[in-house]
Amino acid sequence: MSFRTGTLVVVGVGLIGGSVALALKARGAVARVVGVGRSRANLDDALAAGIVDGACTLADRWTDEVARADAVLLAAPVAQFGALFAAMAPRLPVHALLTDAGSTKADVVAAAREHLGAAFARFVPAHPIAGTERSGAKAASPTLYEGRQVILTPDAGTSATAVDAVAALWEACGARVSRLDAARHDRIYAAVSHFPHMLSATYMASIAARPDAGDLTSFAGTGFRDMTRISASSPEMWRDIGMANRAALLEELRAFRGPLDALERALRDGDAQSLEALLAVAAWARRSWAAQRTDPGAVE
Amino acid sequence: MSFRTGTLVVVGVGLIGGSVALALKARGAVARVVGVGRSRANLDDALAAGIVDGACTLADRWTDEVARADAVLLAAPVAQFGALFAAMAPRLPVHALLTDAGSTKADVVAAAREHLGAAFARFVPAHPIAGTERSGAKAASPTLYEGRQVILTPDAGTSATAVDAVAALWEACGARVSRLDAARHDRIYAAVSHFPHMLSATYMASIAARPDAGDLTSFAGTGFRDMTRISASSPEMWRDIGMANRAALLEELRAFRGPLDALERALRDGDAQSLEALLAVAAWARRSWAAQRTDPGAVE
Repeated sequence: MSFRTGTLVVVGVGLIGGSVALALKARGAVARVVGVGRSRANLDDALAAGIVDGACTLADRWTDEVARADAVLLAAPVAQFGALFAAMAPRLPVHALLTDAGSTKADVVAAAREHLGAAFARFVPAHPIAGTERSGAKAASPTLYEGRQVILTPDAGTSATAVDAVAALWEACGARVSRLDAARHDRIYAAVSHFPHMLSATYMASIAARPDAGDLTSFAGTGFRDMTRISASSPEMWRDIGMANRAALLEELRAFRGPLDALERALRDGDAQSLEALLAVAAWARRSWAAQRTDPGAVE
Repeated sequence: MSFRTGTLVVVGVGLIGGSVALALKARGAVARVVGVGRSRANLDDALAAGIVDGACTLADRWTDEVARADAVLLAAPVAQFGALFAAMAPRLPVHALLTDAGSTKADVVAAAREHLGAAFARFVPAHPIAGTERSGAKAASPTLYEGRQVILTPDAGTSATAVDAVAALWEACGARVSRLDAARHDRIYAAVSHFPHMLSATYMASIAARPDAGDLTSFAGTGFRDMTRISASSPEMWRDIGMANRAALLEELRAFRGPLDALERALRDGDAQSLEALLAVAAWARRSWAAQRTDPGAVE
């Protein structure tokens, strides 16, 4: 199914939302993109870069734009979704599609169910597995989604037609679309995305707290670079992800303490064999994972 | 000071040792390279790739090669250094330079002092801050060290002439050379290299232990890729690093528990402000670090 739409309203024209706009424009799949956001400066960047054709801030009458939309993409931090859904629900045309790009899904589905009313059936929750540590419209790229996964987590109450149309929208961005139950999505991404993100940030914050942090990090190499890259991401966005998915994250953190304690014991006891066993399991698992990946950019 | 030598013996012709050989050959800075190692198959790879001109295993009379050397590079796992120093000490020509590529330095200096006798003055301990998760001669590259740091940790008993010559050797590989006290080196690298490596491996091992590990990791993206990349490295090499530097590593691990506990509290209490504060410190520190780096490859 190929995707074409008239007016797309993107709420949150950052790396994620801006890249959808650019990808659809590059494919000729959208006639007009209107950007909505908090920061006038960022919207001006988006206009200057040709990412959006029109723009208004959340302080303006942005729901007038929603009333003219054929499709709406929410790409703002997930904690704002409740208020955004509530504001747009009465204005959303009956034919308009709605999707999002939030990294958590159960909370987003709950907020949509609470605030969207009849439009809930046309909201297809989505999580694009793409992104970099950069943020803002200037970081957007038409190729961000090429070959990447986008997970849809439709509810029992979601229209099958809307699911197909939103799948086509993300495929038009170059993505491979799959589907998961929202709760299972959140547990999986706590394990393979949200928790490692928190671990990276916690490590980076612990180094930053040292009196000699600048001296220490001047000696750092590529291992440090890669371990800490994601910690440069938007604190606000990840705060919201952390709060939205905190039950699953707490489970991950508690599960991690077992292997961490085992590492401490091996070091304390000078137990080279146990340390090597832990390292060997990790190396085998990481090499197997890399060998199975085929997406561009997923593995160096 | 430019570097030229006759015969270089490389003990351990993997990524690190092989890349030194290729870099010096590319610059015409070495007449002949002899590889010494445990695995005949890896030495045959090194011969076939033109990394070495001759090769013998540790089961052969490898110290005969040392007796003809103008320079020797130890690039084997550090736990083997004591035995290697002891075997080569009586055969090393009085003019021959000796350096290494171990990631820990206090233990290497101690082993050298114990076993090298008079040759200790000509041993200049070195730690090249370069490497990838790949290993073996096939992973070697003549450009691995270009623009990278190499830290020398000479002892009070190290000859100043030998330090200058070994600095020139590493500079001939394209590296920027600096110096540190060995104990301080080990504390710094526990913080910015060895501990994050152990954290990455511990996380990867904890995921690998799940019954649904394959399913979980099939949904992983670039954050997971980067957080776990270094965990694919040689378990044997990192076991030795972990054991050699375990006192400093234990201090790092214990210091890390403070921020990890703070993360758990913030998640448990739904304390969005504390979580954002932690993430903001990390993001600020990581962005500042990246902005200050100029080495090729150090920052994406």
